[in-house]
Amino acid sequence: MATKTNPGRFFEDYKVGQVIAHAVPRTVAEGERALYHALYPARHALYSSDAFAADCGLDGSPLDDLIAFHVVFGKTVPDVSLNAVANLGYGEGRWLLPVYPGDTLRSVSEVIGLKQNSNGKSGVVYVRTRGLNQNDEVVLEYVRWVMVRKRDLDAPAPETVLPELRKVVPAEDLVIPEGLSFEEYDFTQAGEPHRWGDYEIGEKIDHVDGVTIEEAEHMLATRLWQNTAKVHFDATFREDGKRLIYGGHIISMARALSFNGLANAQMIVALNGGAHANPCFAGDTVKAWSEVLDKAETDAPGIGAIRLRLVAVKQGAAPFALKGEDGKYAPEVLLDLDYWALMPL
Amino acid sequence: MATKTNPGRFFEDYKVGQVIAHAVPRTVAEGERALYHALYPARHALYSSDAFAADCGLDGSPLDDLIAFHVVFGKTVPDVSLNAVANLGYGEGRWLLPVYPGDTLRSVSEVIGLKQNSNGKSGVVYVRTRGLNQNDEVVLEYVRWVMVRKRDLDAPAPETVLPELRKVVPAEDLVIPEGLSFEEYDFTQAGEPHRWGDYEIGEKIDHVDGVTIEEAEHMLATRLWQNTAKVHFDATFREDGKRLIYGGHIISMARALSFNGLANAQMIVALNGGAHANPCFAGDTVKAWSEVLDKAETDAPGIGAIRLRLVAVKQGAAPFALKGEDGKYAPEVLLDLDYWALMPL
Amino acid sequence: MATKTNPGRFFEDYKVGQVIAHAVPRTVAEGERALYHALYPARHALYSSDAFAADCGLDGSPLDDLIAFHVVFGKTVPDVSLNAVANLGYGEGRWLLPVYPGDTLRSVSEVIGLKQNSNGKSGVVYVRTRGLNQNDEVVLEYVRWVMVRKRDLDAPAPETVLPELRKVVPAEDLVIPEGLSFEEYDFTQAGEPHRWGDYEIGEKIDHVDGVTIEEAEHMLATRLWQNTAKVHFDATFREDGKRLIYGGHIISMARALSFNGLANAQMIVALNGGAHANPCFAGDTVKAWSEVLDKAETDAPGIGAIRLRLVAVKQGAAPFALKGEDGKYAPEVLLDLDYWALMPL
Repeated sequence: MATKTNPGRFFEDYKVGQVIAHAVPRTVAEGERALYHALYPARHALYSSDAFAADCGLDGSPLDDLIAFHVVFGKTVPDVSLNAVANLGYGEGRWLLPVYPGDTLRSVSEVIGLKQNSNGKSGVVYVRTRGLNQNDEVVLEYVRWVMVRKRDLDAPAPETVLPELRKVVPAEDLVIPEGLSFEEYDFTQAGEPHRWGDYEIGEKIDHVDGVTIEEAEHMLATRLWQNTAKVHFDATFREDGKRLIYGGHIISMARALSFNGLANAQMIVALNGGAHANPCFAGDTVKAWSEVLDKAETDAPGIGAIRLRLVAVKQGAAPFALKGEDGKYAPEVLLDLDYWALMPL
Repeated sequence: MATKTNPGRFFEDYKVGQVIAHAVPRTVAEGERALYHALYPARHALYSSDAFAADCGLDGSPLDDLIAFHVVFGKTVPDVSLNAVANLGYGEGRWLLPVYPGDTLRSVSEVIGLKQNSNGKSGVVYVRTRGLNQNDEVVLEYVRWVMVRKRDLDAPAPETVLPELRKVVPAEDLVIPEGLSFEEYDFTQAGEPHRWGDYEIGEKIDHVDGVTIEEAEHMLATRLWQNTAKVHFDATFREDGKRLIYGGHIISMARALSFNGLANAQMIVALNGGAHANPCFAGDTVKAWSEVLDKAETDAPGIGAIRLRLVAVKQGAAPFALKGEDGKYAPEVLLDLDYWALMPL
Repeated sequence: MATKTNPGRFFEDYKVGQVIAHAVPRTVAEGERALYHALYPARHALYSSDAFAADCGLDGSPLDDLIAFHVVFGKTVPDVSLNAVANLGYGEGRWLLPVYPGDTLRSVSEVIGLKQNSNGKSGVVYVRTRGLNQNDEVVLEYVRWVMVRKRDLDAPAPETVLPELRKVVPAEDLVIPEGLSFEEYDFTQAGEPHRWGDYEIGEKIDHVDGVTIEEAEHMLATRLWQNTAKVHFDATFREDGKRLIYGGHIISMARALSFNGLANAQMIVALNGGAHANPCFAGDTVKAWSEVLDKAETDAPGIGAIRLRLVAVKQGAAPFALKGEDGKYAPEVLLDLDYWALMPL
């Protein structure tokens, strides 16, 4: 009669090349969309209105790009990060297919790198995760690396394998949904007049608005993605009695806040990298700012790509706070995310 | 490289006759309905059951009348009330068409009045707002007037234009949804036996139940309507560190509480007027009472109209509290709303 | 002009054989499903994925079994437990038909027992409640008994009628949804490898995870089921200023937590009994453990039945805490539930 509960994988349980099919497929529909819009001040028109999306050549309004990310990510938690010490980074993320109400998502990860830490107590695991729909089409893929504890400190170190990851997804590798066109784009309905040509590389935008974080809200969100990490839900788990907020909650909050100034950065199509710079707790007030890192043309009608740094900060942050002279993130910085979005020319 | 974020309109930016198409159309569906029923103790049978609504001659259960109101209202906030000092009043509101799951709503406002305040620092803006569905049919219209700050105190005062507003929508102007009939109305399923004939003008009803307001709940609601006013979300915005609760949250809470005694006041068809008498904050416990102001017959089968005053109060309110001898609202009164509803004869 | 609000029934208002049709039918859909998954860490695959459910022979993923229970239960509150002193027990519960998105549920109860208490101030009312869908098919039935106050202490005691209730629903009376088959069951997607044969009678499972309860969350849940009991919503109602948490919130939380160790106990098909051992309040952290009470074979392909005790406890509970030497529940025990579930062989 062995223990029936899931103890999670430890560092020595991972092998390069290993493929993990994550549990609990999930059908996502209009309920998830409504909850997303209740949890975050999300207003990008393509994800808000079937009519607007149809005018852009889609069959209807897809579910928000980050719903797909969170659902796919959430499934990996019991297999990848249950014994994680830290979520170290993201890379090579691409959205490959919109997710529509009624789609069923599942996740599969492949271990693509391993490196034991010098202290012998933990190691870094690199996985490439793919989210698939009910037709076995990949809707999303990304690489994540986490630091995972060893169960047995005497387990031998595996051969170090470090994946070669591109720092930025090249613009020519961005996948634009079939049929998408911004030639008939309605800037009035979208909420802002600024088009791709109006943004300059290096430009920074303070998104002005702020949201104070509540325990009930981050838990609702995190459960909605079936992310089961104890630390988000159980106030008795950490010694300080605080529930650590799922980093994805901050990503979605910051992205939604960025509407004010980037209303036309409609679709996220790639995640180049990201760091959860500091933990966030209930009571913190989250604000956001963005920096235009790059721009690229695309073959799609009326559509340009814009590469953005999205930074979430909390109360007390200096304007456009990022890193100190020591190269470390300022203590008020919560998130530093690098992504590509599609914008009307 | 101008500022990309929306600074909102100031008093001198409005001209009588100006038409503002508000941004971000929104498809509303079953998710919004479920959230509405989770956020408020809403139980009116017509908005709860497809089967009950079908028995009343509709194609199915429409979304709650106040969902339509909040969605249409929310869109106007970035254009009308971002720099508002106060929301002064509502009038001439009519629901013209039910909203069904899958409908996409957008809002258009026309400036119908302007009056600079004598202090020269602000003025009153009157707008008539219409909510339209994906077929460009008007589903709802109402007038709202707000006090808006001037950006430039030296800007000249506009000519004063005060719209002529009817204090009450005449009963003959109420629009009853096509096909609606209360001839087969099931009072048992609806929850109360009291019909139109059982209510007397002047009758007051204490709705008995109370709900204590939570930060997470009013923010979920307000975001769901894509209302972006900072004061509802950002605890660092006001000097006292409190988040002011969206007045519409109190309207919906009071209306839902009024089920207990007015279960058969099924559909709101007109908003004659309304005042948010005092601010509400998390921790307050909201209760409600109603007064029958008028009654009218209609041409529709089995359907009468009832004009109700709906008053929301907080803890400490005297029974049927409204105004003091000085004519001012008692400090515990949160809302004083005047509306028409449809009720079975 | 009589009081229009519902005063609720008192003990002397019930007669054995009386049938009460409860008010406000409710259409439940994908919004309720999404909210359920946001409120509880629910992950049973059959209720999460249309694709998984189709592979198990169903038309799609039904709504969680406890959604059906809560909706049916919630409707009975205004008629059965508005003046209740205590919810004493459940029994003879059976799920008879899955509930799918779009179904409309209503509830009917029959009074099957009455016993006045020796103090003459209250009595116990036994009702058998049935939930019906829009086709008048019974989807769920259960017996509940509550202690209800008398309005008039001088009202004569009714003849005592105690229903004969079976302590456990016999395995042969369990109803398995038509078409359900676990022969193609995908254990990887379901999340755990443990099948019916892997569980032993007497085995106990600590479900490990915990969730700290928030006011906003239990109120959202309780309102979603249109349960109107004041004590859950109004912080001014109890003298201690606390809102008592709806017992069903704890049932759903514990059941969802039991995924970790019982991921394959897919469908609840019977409720043998249950006790809300101690009250729960916001701030409590809920954990759960289970005990295998019995096992039975079924005629359905690949499907076994497992009878489980599900115990919810709060912070400070001893491992597998239940009752003290005095036979009373330990103060940290919140719930003791006895149910049958279906599991792949």
